[in-house]
Amino acid sequence: MPGEFEFISWIRQQQAASKLLQVPAGDDFAVLKWPADDLLLVGVDQVLDGVHVDTSRHAPERIGQKVMNRNLSDCAAMACLPVAAVATVALPRGTGLDYAQRLYRGMADAAAAFNCVLAGGDTGSWDGKLAMTVTLLGRSDGIQPVTRAGAKPGDGIYVTGPLGGSILGRHLDFVPRIPEGRLLGSIATAMIDLSDGLSRDLRHICDASGVGATIEGDKIPIHDDARRLAEQDKIDPLTHALDDGEDYELLFTASVPPPIGTRVGTTTADGEIRLKTSAGTQPLSAGAWEHHF
Amino acid sequence: MPGEFEFISWIRQQQAASKLLQVPAGDDFAVLKWPADDLLLVGVDQVLDGVHVDTSRHAPERIGQKVMNRNLSDCAAMACLPVAAVATVALPRGTGLDYAQRLYRGMADAAAAFNCVLAGGDTGSWDGKLAMTVTLLGRSDGIQPVTRAGAKPGDGIYVTGPLGGSILGRHLDFVPRIPEGRLLGSIATAMIDLSDGLSRDLRHICDASGVGATIEGDKIPIHDDARRLAEQDKIDPLTHALDDGEDYELLFTASVPPPIGTRVGTTTADGEIRLKTSAGTQPLSAGAWEHHF
Repeated sequence: MPGEFEFISWIRQQQAASKLLQVPAGDDFAVLKWPADDLLLVGVDQVLDGVHVDTSRHAPERIGQKVMNRNLSDCAAMACLPVAAVATVALPRGTGLDYAQRLYRGMADAAAAFNCVLAGGDTGSWDGKLAMTVTLLGRSDGIQPVTRAGAKPGDGIYVTGPLGGSILGRHLDFVPRIPEGRLLGSIATAMIDLSDGLSRDLRHICDASGVGATIEGDKIPIHDDARRLAEQDKIDPLTHALDDGEDYELLFTASVPPPIGTRVGTTTADGEIRLKTSAGTQPLSAGAWEHHF
Repeated sequence: MPGEFEFISWIRQQQAASKLLQVPAGDDFAVLKWPADDLLLVGVDQVLDGVHVDTSRHAPERIGQKVMNRNLSDCAAMACLPVAAVATVALPRGTGLDYAQRLYRGMADAAAAFNCVLAGGDTGSWDGKLAMTVTLLGRSDGIQPVTRAGAKPGDGIYVTGPLGGSILGRHLDFVPRIPEGRLLGSIATAMIDLSDGLSRDLRHICDASGVGATIEGDKIPIHDDARRLAEQDKIDPLTHALDDGEDYELLFTASVPPPIGTRVGTTTADGEIRLKTSAGTQPLSAGAWEHHF
């Protein structure tokens, strides 16, 4: 029966070298040299079986990929460069070493795609369902981090790609917008990644920045997945694009035209968030999901 | 019904200021200024219901305290200073806001005791059991981190306190040995915190350092809890001290007498780990537990 230490030993053999990493996984902590003048950014996100993934349907590589990419997407939304990650996995008892290795490979490959190293972690097993976390460390590397709080009334509101229907599979296979985030770092006044859905994530920017917004429904780029899903559930594609979570595109504001992105609206001086369509202008409610407990 | 965002909003109100923290919890990432010349240390550890804690018996403050203190203990074992932490919590659906807040308070109070700030995190709810993680960032601040790999044959082997029987309650209420770790930073050749039990954690040092060890049974400081437990389960107190996990004392090696600690043995040139008692000398097997999956 394989155990935690066999898994850790295997992980150590997988690790790529990093000039920042002085002491790799396997000790109590990993040790990194941090470049002077670089800001350190840190965030963490989890993936839970039955909420963000479904272990009965999704391959472990895709699950590992998702937990890493969710964090890389947050990193992109701050316009920073990923450097190193630490991960935890709580494995249902009876999970084999092979499955754990496939989870790891999904994480490590996703990290390596952006020159990010998996620097450490913690593995446990329990009489519970699969739960994973990744904590990501990023650095500013010459670009001031973009928060949610910098939007001013009259800024344009933009998204980096088409929205809606990610539940059809894209929520597992999206590509974090790291280069896009870096490109927008010097021009975006506020930025967030679309994990909760446009109608909710826009509210996060508006609340943090103290602005309102008017979204133009006919400007929103609608993903083919949203149209396909609409055929199945008879909810219109625009509603999917506005309310579905897990697009992992960047939503940002800018006072001058950005080099990339589709303009979907304008920030306003009042706190209201409105949707303008051919049927008129109405309040945009936050229709996307929230974890309730 | 309370939700994730109400909880996050409450958390933001709790946060203490930190001169290192530029952007606090609530954005995608927290942003920290990192002092030049300081090494960055990062580690992560989880607490799972039914493995490390029992939600049916343990108050949420103690559970929150434990997950933070496990990580602070790892930090102590590297001789570094804790700076900031990010946390995740996967809450069983139906958990109230009050319970979540009590978990948070346990974590935040434990962190504050060592001037560490909770800089961010992620909250989710699911049809699963309570799972928590803390990722801790520490800094070297003038003391080179102590790894597991520096022990040389002939070093003394020491522990910072009495061992065994932590399951009686101490595993929830231990105090991380941060000042002890700092004090030992310039003298310990290798160091680890006793989470898996002396017989196993000593093996981690020996494997990483390429040394063996002889432990003298009659030198091991035995905790009163080990004696109390021995009365219940008829396993002798020394076995509890050697094999029980979660002591969270520091186990370290040094070539000169350290200012604190009880000497329990000596490292050797061969790879063997032996226990010397009045009954003779025999191989010390790693009796403590390992997560199996």
